[in-house]
Amino acid sequence: MVAIMTTPKPRSTTLDGLFRPRSVAIIGASRKKGHLARELMHNLIVHEFQGKIFPVNPSADVIHSFKCYPTVGAIPDEVDLAMIIVPRDHVLGAAEECGKKGVKGIVVISSGFREVGPAGVEREQKLIGLCRKYHMRMIGPNCMGIVNTDPLFNLNATFAGTFPRPGPIGFLSQSGAMGAALLSHADRLGLGMSMFASMGNKADVSGNDLLEYWEDDPDTKVVLMYLESFGNPRNFTNVARRVTKKMPVVAVKAGRTAAGAAAAASHTGALAGSDVAVDALLSQCGVIRAQTVNELFDVAMAFSSQPLPKGRRVAILTDAGGPAIMATDAIVAAGLEMASLAPETMAGIAKGLSEDASVKNPVDMLGHSGGEDYARCLPLLLKDPGVDAVIAMYVPPIMHDPVEVAHRIFEAAQGSDKPVVCVLMAHDQVLEAIKKRGGPTLPIYAFPEGAVRALAAMARYREMRDRDPGSMPDFKVDRATAEKILRKAASEHREHLALDEAQQVLACYGLRFAKSKLVKERSELRAALRDVGTPVVLKISSPDIIHKTEIGGVVTNVGSPDEAAVAFDALLHRAKSAFPNARIDGVLVQEMVRGGREMILGMTQDRSFGPLIMAGLGGVYVEVLKDVAFRVHPITDRDAREMVEGLRAAPLLRGVRGEKAVSIDAYIDALLRVSRLVTDFHGLKELDVNPFVVGETAEESVAVDARIRIDPKAFGG
Amino acid sequence: MVAIMTTPKPRSTTLDGLFRPRSVAIIGASRKKGHLARELMHNLIVHEFQGKIFPVNPSADVIHSFKCYPTVGAIPDEVDLAMIIVPRDHVLGAAEECGKKGVKGIVVISSGFREVGPAGVEREQKLIGLCRKYHMRMIGPNCMGIVNTDPLFNLNATFAGTFPRPGPIGFLSQSGAMGAALLSHADRLGLGMSMFASMGNKADVSGNDLLEYWEDDPDTKVVLMYLESFGNPRNFTNVARRVTKKMPVVAVKAGRTAAGAAAAASHTGALAGSDVAVDALLSQCGVIRAQTVNELFDVAMAFSSQPLPKGRRVAILTDAGGPAIMATDAIVAAGLEMASLAPETMAGIAKGLSEDASVKNPVDMLGHSGGEDYARCLPLLLKDPGVDAVIAMYVPPIMHDPVEVAHRIFEAAQGSDKPVVCVLMAHDQVLEAIKKRGGPTLPIYAFPEGAVRALAAMARYREMRDRDPGSMPDFKVDRATAEKILRKAASEHREHLALDEAQQVLACYGLRFAKSKLVKERSELRAALRDVGTPVVLKISSPDIIHKTEIGGVVTNVGSPDEAAVAFDALLHRAKSAFPNARIDGVLVQEMVRGGREMILGMTQDRSFGPLIMAGLGGVYVEVLKDVAFRVHPITDRDAREMVEGLRAAPLLRGVRGEKAVSIDAYIDALLRVSRLVTDFHGLKELDVNPFVVGETAEESVAVDARIRIDPKAFGG
Repeated sequence: MVAIMTTPKPRSTTLDGLFRPRSVAIIGASRKKGHLARELMHNLIVHEFQGKIFPVNPSADVIHSFKCYPTVGAIPDEVDLAMIIVPRDHVLGAAEECGKKGVKGIVVISSGFREVGPAGVEREQKLIGLCRKYHMRMIGPNCMGIVNTDPLFNLNATFAGTFPRPGPIGFLSQSGAMGAALLSHADRLGLGMSMFASMGNKADVSGNDLLEYWEDDPDTKVVLMYLESFGNPRNFTNVARRVTKKMPVVAVKAGRTAAGAAAAASHTGALAGSDVAVDALLSQCGVIRAQTVNELFDVAMAFSSQPLPKGRRVAILTDAGGPAIMATDAIVAAGLEMASLAPETMAGIAKGLSEDASVKNPVDMLGHSGGEDYARCLPLLLKDPGVDAVIAMYVPPIMHDPVEVAHRIFEAAQGSDKPVVCVLMAHDQVLEAIKKRGGPTLPIYAFPEGAVRALAAMARYREMRDRDPGSMPDFKVDRATAEKILRKAASEHREHLALDEAQQVLACYGLRFAKSKLVKERSELRAALRDVGTPVVLKISSPDIIHKTEIGGVVTNVGSPDEAAVAFDALLHRAKSAFPNARIDGVLVQEMVRGGREMILGMTQDRSFGPLIMAGLGGVYVEVLKDVAFRVHPITDRDAREMVEGLRAAPLLRGVRGEKAVSIDAYIDALLRVSRLVTDFHGLKELDVNPFVVGETAEESVAVDARIRIDPKAFGG
Repeated sequence: MVAIMTTPKPRSTTLDGLFRPRSVAIIGASRKKGHLARELMHNLIVHEFQGKIFPVNPSADVIHSFKCYPTVGAIPDEVDLAMIIVPRDHVLGAAEECGKKGVKGIVVISSGFREVGPAGVEREQKLIGLCRKYHMRMIGPNCMGIVNTDPLFNLNATFAGTFPRPGPIGFLSQSGAMGAALLSHADRLGLGMSMFASMGNKADVSGNDLLEYWEDDPDTKVVLMYLESFGNPRNFTNVARRVTKKMPVVAVKAGRTAAGAAAAASHTGALAGSDVAVDALLSQCGVIRAQTVNELFDVAMAFSSQPLPKGRRVAILTDAGGPAIMATDAIVAAGLEMASLAPETMAGIAKGLSEDASVKNPVDMLGHSGGEDYARCLPLLLKDPGVDAVIAMYVPPIMHDPVEVAHRIFEAAQGSDKPVVCVLMAHDQVLEAIKKRGGPTLPIYAFPEGAVRALAAMARYREMRDRDPGSMPDFKVDRATAEKILRKAASEHREHLALDEAQQVLACYGLRFAKSKLVKERSELRAALRDVGTPVVLKISSPDIIHKTEIGGVVTNVGSPDEAAVAFDALLHRAKSAFPNARIDGVLVQEMVRGGREMILGMTQDRSFGPLIMAGLGGVYVEVLKDVAFRVHPITDRDAREMVEGLRAAPLLRGVRGEKAVSIDAYIDALLRVSRLVTDFHGLKELDVNPFVVGETAEESVAVDARIRIDPKAFGG
């Protein structure tokens, strides 16, 4: 068995020059209000940056009361960080100067690089070259700046209107525009940050670099990411797998519905939109994916301040039935469970509540409940061993001071090792007053769905973090023979293997196929039928005919040599009329497999993520019901099992309504063998085994049809 | 053909006494701050109710500077509306007095009625009796009050902290607590209302009454509902079908995941959670269902001010790429389409934009765009015949005045007959400033998802409103024979029909079954096989054995009389050992159906909604994949077609990958015949036809198995 290990952390190339500078130069400093450089410098000053500030501008003597220098080189002190905000044609010159000065990090705000086409790409390449040459780290170009709220630095090197309050969140945004909006929204929610970076074109410092930097930052406990692309997904996998063991990473990835592989020849290729790869990758790395920006923040609020739940059982404490019903709906929909309260808990709650109150979960204390009631009942719920998390909901009635009640709730939750989140359906003014009062607090949501979303993400994170990654069995395979077959196809410049070739390759990796014989001449049919055993299926065998059923290239349930002869002629005729130029290898006579469940297993190449492995309901259902699961290659036994168990059709495999279960282990074994095949041959482009009939035992589980597409060049073709 | 008509509107029992009063008595008036009655009276006064106010309290002489009366009877003027806010034991007395005084409408704020159990139910019945006796209409009890913003009335008869601004929304809330929170939230979003009602226990005035009242109100253009239950779903169907032809009705229904019919014996029963019925009912009535309160308001903002889109094609105009990608994702996920812009549109947009800008949809004008750019490009998009709706997105950069830009966007959208919604990712202060500036405006969303959700709901509403309801074919049926069979089972006190009985009943309604013969003796097998034709399937026939496969009660692919004899003995043996006391009618010898698609058709009774009709993928897949659609009975041909086309498995019926299409019409015909059967016999409790094998033609489409459960009492049993 080969254990899956997270890659050990490399010696960190520090980003301290960027995020922990003792001095900042602003190249292109301006005194014009509204100019980005002026706003940025103003932000640094008013938020009391703890180091020195040096404006640089050859045509000014003083800016914002600071002595101004004509060049970076003219600054008498050491410069750790330079912010470059000059027209694009002056960026390279400024960067070169920084290099010569010994600046440690540059943040290039200026745009006009890769994002504007070929001329920009070239300019960006040169900029990267300068960074390498002078050992500078760079954020951007085409970005909005960076933030470090650590009071030792108070670095607000952005032109955004918001300086985040200190807190446990490291936040990176690929989009500058979104970044500014997100900073503002986060602040409104009271979310505090350790550091923030607008990444821009990610020409040097990448999201991966930041993840590694924050992994070691004592102030960062949660990472939020707004992503539009992955620079290096394979590297991301290594870094994220390790970081998510230590802290939650929550990502919004825009571009979910990108075109996808519409022209793919395999089912697997057609079903794997690029977003599927993103989902698979993030979940394999333990990253929580938020569907929307709202969800990102809902989740971040809970992660920032609450302990992780030990399980999925949620209790609700409320003073109003309506919102509790909506919360219950959301809990069930999110895959959480309504906790069953212990009799002692219910008895304790009942004391002091009116008899109309409901002491079952959701606990409804009714509309006249006040701070005392929450203070008494919340600890009882938290003490119940059947409760993993609590949602405290409060619709302020007119009789109580909502600020006071909210604080009783906050106090009652202090010190608990279970998460508590709050749904407060109150006026903005009330919420403001609650926030201003100070003292202990809880994540506050305006509606039940946000609170539930947050608890669901926490439960999911804990499960992912504590998950056994599984291992990869070490199969005995016949790699040499497989390679010979693949090389032969490549030497004939064929992308598609013929059916019998695909069968042989897979057989080298231990996949069992339905008994079959390739027949080239009508006269061989009788012998083939005898060898295979009737009834049989006849299939046209041609590397040029991929979708056989569409041209009538399959005849099932053939019982006698006479029937077989008729079918043989018909198949050749149909194939030749549909594809006059196709190379036809003959007709495959195959055992007719009965019983079992038709599944599919497959692989396709994603442009950024590399090979993806697919499992799913097979046969004709695959395209229609799309009941499939993907993982980024390579997969472990644990991955394979989770793929299968996550299918809607999983109960079919376990047996329903008196039908016998089929061998899920045999199917998992086949998935792992395909994964191994893909490990051994990088030139495989697409692979479908469909159907793979899963029988009651491993012996009865056989592949019936298969397609393999290769990159002939990878095999010397 | 029987056309489906919406019921003509009955003579409206006016609610003017409640919502358009010239005088209001407050029974239980109080001068104690924080007391509900005091807050309510204060609200009436400060929001300048246009009629007379009469506080009623025997122990006060003056309240809030108004002369106070000891009883309603003591008021010298006529009283249109009385608000009753007294301890529950005094409510009946107060109501009786109102009746004697000739009060037209009462709103009972007091609680302590049906919601507290049997004693409350009785009290509520008496209260209803008083309303009937004195021809008063009542809202509540156990409610929060009512609002009419019409300046002729300015009626704010609630104790909530918010008096909504005037606007086109009629809003009803079943929960008082939610109602107050929702009023406050709506106000924050700038949503204006015509009327509001907190319904409480709905003892007299129901949601249906309000829908009918608002149907004729010239100020109400959109109805929002927060529901926790349906009082009379069948009446709701009639009213809502009519009202939604005139104005959009958007509902949040809490309690989505209520227990459901877990103990149901049929697949149909097991799959029909009560929420499925709610979904089916709302969509058949043309009501838009919002999943969350947030969605309710997102949708309401657009309906309140924008014209309906003519189609699903959306264009995006933005100054930032990131949010546009998120909007595109949301558009595709919501079933809307990204509009393809005409070449003229793109050429027009290109003029005046930098060459780095994207003129394809989404149109990205880049970060330096200002009001001029929006003012120029938005009309071009609105003029494009390929665009049905526009999302204008704006992330304020630092160089422009965002308030000014927003207003250029608002102005540019004026007078368009296509909806425009705005995504403004800006600070709260900016949003406040935008709202305060006055002049034309647009719905504003903080993030793209809300804007897309709103457009999707509008597109869906327009399609539902303009939808052809279809008709019900007038089948020739043999009702008398079916009734005889049902009565016979009832006379034997049987709930479940035997398989052959179920077949006969369905055959009376024109459902074709696979050829079969009931065999009681071994010796009859040979003849049965000859009549039916081999191979055959043998099934145990017993009204007491519902899930035959689970006890091995089905043997397939029996080819010879000898095999049949063995199977016959085995079936009887298995049946007797599994159910020693079962009545066994014999063994059904049935033609073995090959090919075609296994579907299910069924019916179950929902406690509130009556019979539901189900269509879906049949066989063993039904329970596992749950690919089913429900409609509230009776269904039209159009309903049936939409059910089938809405299934994930629909492409299987139309033929995939070279397989022939099967007869969707034959399946629809069967669904309509089952619907007719349910119309004719109200005593049917559950019905499953599974599988119903849909063949290439109507003749080849046959039912293979069926179960019917009845209420024997309904058939004289």
